[in-house]
Amino acid sequence: MSDPRVAGANVTSFGEHPERTGRDLFAEAGLAALDRSGVPAGDVDALYYGNFMGEIAEHQGHQGPLMAEAVGLTVPATRYEAACASSGAAVRDAVRAIRNGEQEVVLVGGMERMTNVGTAAATDALAIAADDLYEVRAGMTFPAAYALMARSYFDEYGGTREDLAHVAVKNHEHALVNDNAQLRKEITVEEVLDAPMVAEPLGLYDACPITDGASAAVLTSAEYAERHDLDAPVAITGTGQDGDNLALQDRQSYAATPAAAGAVAEAYADAGVDADDVDFAEVHDCFTIAEVLAIESLGLYEPGEGITAAREGETTRHGETPINLSGGLKAKGHPVGATGVAQLVTIAKVLEGTHPRAEAVPAADVGVAHNAGGTAASATVHVFEVKA
Amino acid sequence: MSDPRVAGANVTSFGEHPERTGRDLFAEAGLAALDRSGVPAGDVDALYYGNFMGEIAEHQGHQGPLMAEAVGLTVPATRYEAACASSGAAVRDAVRAIRNGEQEVVLVGGMERMTNVGTAAATDALAIAADDLYEVRAGMTFPAAYALMARSYFDEYGGTREDLAHVAVKNHEHALVNDNAQLRKEITVEEVLDAPMVAEPLGLYDACPITDGASAAVLTSAEYAERHDLDAPVAITGTGQDGDNLALQDRQSYAATPAAAGAVAEAYADAGVDADDVDFAEVHDCFTIAEVLAIESLGLYEPGEGITAAREGETTRHGETPINLSGGLKAKGHPVGATGVAQLVTIAKVLEGTHPRAEAVPAADVGVAHNAGGTAASATVHVFEVKA
Repeated sequence: MSDPRVAGANVTSFGEHPERTGRDLFAEAGLAALDRSGVPAGDVDALYYGNFMGEIAEHQGHQGPLMAEAVGLTVPATRYEAACASSGAAVRDAVRAIRNGEQEVVLVGGMERMTNVGTAAATDALAIAADDLYEVRAGMTFPAAYALMARSYFDEYGGTREDLAHVAVKNHEHALVNDNAQLRKEITVEEVLDAPMVAEPLGLYDACPITDGASAAVLTSAEYAERHDLDAPVAITGTGQDGDNLALQDRQSYAATPAAAGAVAEAYADAGVDADDVDFAEVHDCFTIAEVLAIESLGLYEPGEGITAAREGETTRHGETPINLSGGLKAKGHPVGATGVAQLVTIAKVLEGTHPRAEAVPAADVGVAHNAGGTAASATVHVFEVKA
Repeated sequence: MSDPRVAGANVTSFGEHPERTGRDLFAEAGLAALDRSGVPAGDVDALYYGNFMGEIAEHQGHQGPLMAEAVGLTVPATRYEAACASSGAAVRDAVRAIRNGEQEVVLVGGMERMTNVGTAAATDALAIAADDLYEVRAGMTFPAAYALMARSYFDEYGGTREDLAHVAVKNHEHALVNDNAQLRKEITVEEVLDAPMVAEPLGLYDACPITDGASAAVLTSAEYAERHDLDAPVAITGTGQDGDNLALQDRQSYAATPAAAGAVAEAYADAGVDADDVDFAEVHDCFTIAEVLAIESLGLYEPGEGITAAREGETTRHGETPINLSGGLKAKGHPVGATGVAQLVTIAKVLEGTHPRAEAVPAADVGVAHNAGGTAASATVHVFEVKA
């Protein structure tokens, strides 16, 4: 069994791209990933592609073959949809195909256009990641769902809006040097607290923006990388996925994300690592509270201690285990279907030493990607290690 | 490497279900499949689920965890979308997970609600399986796309509307004893030819209906089936997938489906069979011409000879290699996301001898499922063999 290597990885700039189609965005990311990998397009065996709301944003389903064509490939191409974890799910199946020996070279990626439909329609489209019958029709949007989770967390463990604000401040600071980030703007705790309220206790700066963008990476078997002398030191050594009931009302607690914890346990066991081995992580901070829940799921902090870690700055680039060196969804942006692979791109670059925040973890061997769909009814986790 | 066994398989009745939600339909299929399998729900490791147009039909994305919950499972659950080949793609990844040894028991399935939005909206929703920018905006619908393919086939090889009518007549006749089929009505060649024209040369009876329904099957490793003494004689011994450019204009020919041929070649090689070994097949006859192209892709007939086989009745239940004993999409119905697994259900039942048309192939060892998305820009093929 061969752990896949990351041979080339790229994202478009994240933000508003009103004049670009989805295929145009994905072509940019995919062709750049291929170019960086040194792999000839003819060697690519398949495309594993994540997209969430293409039916609504572009009146376009069946995007697998469309995106393969956009990068000049005629290969098996499947679209994975697990809400905001769509391209995390795509990576998982790509890893299996390479480990199986079925495929040697695959393209993974994702794309989302969101800003073209406007904020109200995008918010409605995002809501279809929740339970339409029991949540959405009752008026629940995603800010509301995560607000319920934050309130529940505060009730159970304590914590304040100010504590959460530190997550936003940190991620904005991390993104300052990320040329592809949507929000490159330093913010203060006071500004977070003074921002318009979206869903109490979450304000505007507690939420990630609405984003257009694409991500792509070329994965190869270790044998292929060696045979072709590729510069591909980063391996995906662990994969995990778990699920939970879709509606919050069907969960035992709103203050934890057991699907993420399950995915973490599987991925760590698969890679043979534990939380102590993790040098840094990219986690799914669609809202500030989501990052707190994520670092607890990763086993970096006990339940209820993630909020303290945030307040005390333990997860900044100066801390022991920096979280979201890219700026996270919060500041880098969150083109939903592209996010899982965008996390992969960041982690590969940090481990290779080519990311602008790589100096935060100069001796890093192990990075982890935590990608969650909806209120973490879906979660995928991947472990990356330097194998050069 | 263990070839997965089909331990239990079921479909809902296909047709109009105006008062049932998608989760209700999938619960029926999934729970019945579990019940027939004898596998306890707690042993299920994951759900692989196909759905095409849930965002439009039910304002519901992220259906993986929702459908898992509908059958009482809290497991990793991913939605696969490859247009009409969505649950074929789901089966493919399920097969990999079992062969890997990663998972021992999985549920595969699919669901589609279509009739609730009305025929015009359903036709528009189906169109998003084509290229919105270059096909749909120019007015192309799927009947039009397959009409182009039929005309091209007639131009290249000859053939008439009357030849195609035999496909519809045969599939309606096959469906007469299928209690789950949407159209249980014998038709004649004359009726097909006299039916209203949809897109020249395809008339109303050349097209499959718009359908609500769900399908599900429990797959286990051979070792699990043996250990638990399951009655599961049917194995999935081959899997294949290939892709093509999404838009017809980007193809070299409209009179062939190379993605299907590629998927067939991969699946046959994987199973170690060839076309001569195939005793019967369920193929993707969304339109009559699609069945002709499918049996050529399967290598059962040379290019241009599929139409002759149809005319001469070679693919009826009395022929050497019966095609679509279920009635096919044409008469059984085509709830898009459910179709790939519905083909699996039919094939497993025929091989087990429990299908009402099983007497057509009493000594059958090998059945093949051919599932195509769009104008076969996606195709998955699976080979099933009796291993008892």
